[in-house]
Amino acid sequence: MLSVVIFGYGNVGFHLYKAFQKSKDVQVLQVYSPSLKEHFKKGIHFTNTLNHIPEASLWIIALPDDVIASFSGKLPKTEAIVVHTAGSVSIQVLSNHKNKGVFYPLQSFSKNKKVDFKKIPICIEGGAKKDLKVLTSLSKVLSKNVVVISSEERLKIHLAAVWVNNFSNHLYHLANDFMDENALDFNLLLPLIKETSRKIEIMSPRTAQTGPAKRFDEKTLQLHTKLLTHTTHKELYELFTISIQEKFKTEHFGKKL
Amino acid sequence: MLSVVIFGYGNVGFHLYKAFQKSKDVQVLQVYSPSLKEHFKKGIHFTNTLNHIPEASLWIIALPDDVIASFSGKLPKTEAIVVHTAGSVSIQVLSNHKNKGVFYPLQSFSKNKKVDFKKIPICIEGGAKKDLKVLTSLSKVLSKNVVVISSEERLKIHLAAVWVNNFSNHLYHLANDFMDENALDFNLLLPLIKETSRKIEIMSPRTAQTGPAKRFDEKTLQLHTKLLTHTTHKELYELFTISIQEKFKTEHFGKKL
Repeated sequence: MLSVVIFGYGNVGFHLYKAFQKSKDVQVLQVYSPSLKEHFKKGIHFTNTLNHIPEASLWIIALPDDVIASFSGKLPKTEAIVVHTAGSVSIQVLSNHKNKGVFYPLQSFSKNKKVDFKKIPICIEGGAKKDLKVLTSLSKVLSKNVVVISSEERLKIHLAAVWVNNFSNHLYHLANDFMDENALDFNLLLPLIKETSRKIEIMSPRTAQTGPAKRFDEKTLQLHTKLLTHTTHKELYELFTISIQEKFKTEHFGKKL
Repeated sequence: MLSVVIFGYGNVGFHLYKAFQKSKDVQVLQVYSPSLKEHFKKGIHFTNTLNHIPEASLWIIALPDDVIASFSGKLPKTEAIVVHTAGSVSIQVLSNHKNKGVFYPLQSFSKNKKVDFKKIPICIEGGAKKDLKVLTSLSKVLSKNVVVISSEERLKIHLAAVWVNNFSNHLYHLANDFMDENALDFNLLLPLIKETSRKIEIMSPRTAQTGPAKRFDEKTLQLHTKLLTHTTHKELYELFTISIQEKFKTEHFGKKL
């Protein structure tokens, strides 16, 4: 059986704790977070200090990307494989540890939304072959989709994930605020949002593209930008139009010539 | 029983034809498209001319937004309710017709993706009460979600739909091309894309927002922009960062002060 200590009890730490707790193959020994009050729950030690970290198969740093390096430096020497869970952080920041790796579940976590790890791709990297072997075992406990990915590749995947997750969600946010401001029901858009994400399971995003920008429909584009009063949102609309038309200009003008 | 003529056999016309054909309450009398070869299929006349348009309960113009006005002008006088299916086009462009309306299914259609109309919101508008009554009957044949929406509101909904559908899909397109260029598998992102659209069924997009822009994580933001070489895509990344941070600056700086 593998044993783990989890550092961080934010969105990722929380869901890893929940998922490992359900498994018979992984034992969570301790959960650390500076904001936790010390207590025990089903034998697991929740703590806010780093004074008594138990040895384990893995120490998992599930903290925000920008604090991983400094946090890693605070940890004592250990035989455990020290891993972080971040998309954009190189394995190099863990170089002060003997055994190291990365365990990056490619998903967006929120505490109040249940997660089924089975289909989540887990991108792993090991400082050495033996580290990778343990990380593979740990990952396969949770997911059927485990891939070995280098730090350089992982950063690229993380960037693509930001496009499809953070930025898409921000578009939902803008649409939601816009609908609210105009006393319209945002729920009207939910079937469309669902369909948009489903479509690309059966066709490429290029094939799925529709709309006034792709059609070079100047009149509709102008009607829309007139409705936008906030500078950033107007710029965003115009930049999207440019970017979409860059992808389809050959097709469009080719057809017209 | 209602009878319809459909003008246009693109994404919308095609799916309306398919949906009405399945229904016992609506009879499709004719389908017109300039690119169709003349033939009959299950008693329905497919034609490429406007010489013999039968009278019907409704004539449905399912053509691109920017040709509806001029097409409407070409149609002969009729007792049918002439409707279009566009989000951004006012009912006014049909003012040459005695009976008129709008029938706007809020969904993105592609010919090679099946559509279940039941949950699709259908936004209707009638030139007169009696037109609206017929449009309501027609819409309820297809969907459980029928709403009366003015031309002004519809344009706003259409703009919001462009944000969540056209622009989100373009983000998928950019991510797909970026993954391909880096010899990475775009399919790795599909579970994340699905989850992103599902999340907002149980929480607001504001609550669902995560990522380096929201966290004001300068280091990660810089790592990402360095990876982007195409000007438009770099600008888009930077503008998204600004736009996301505008929404969260009070929360972020409030916490730090």
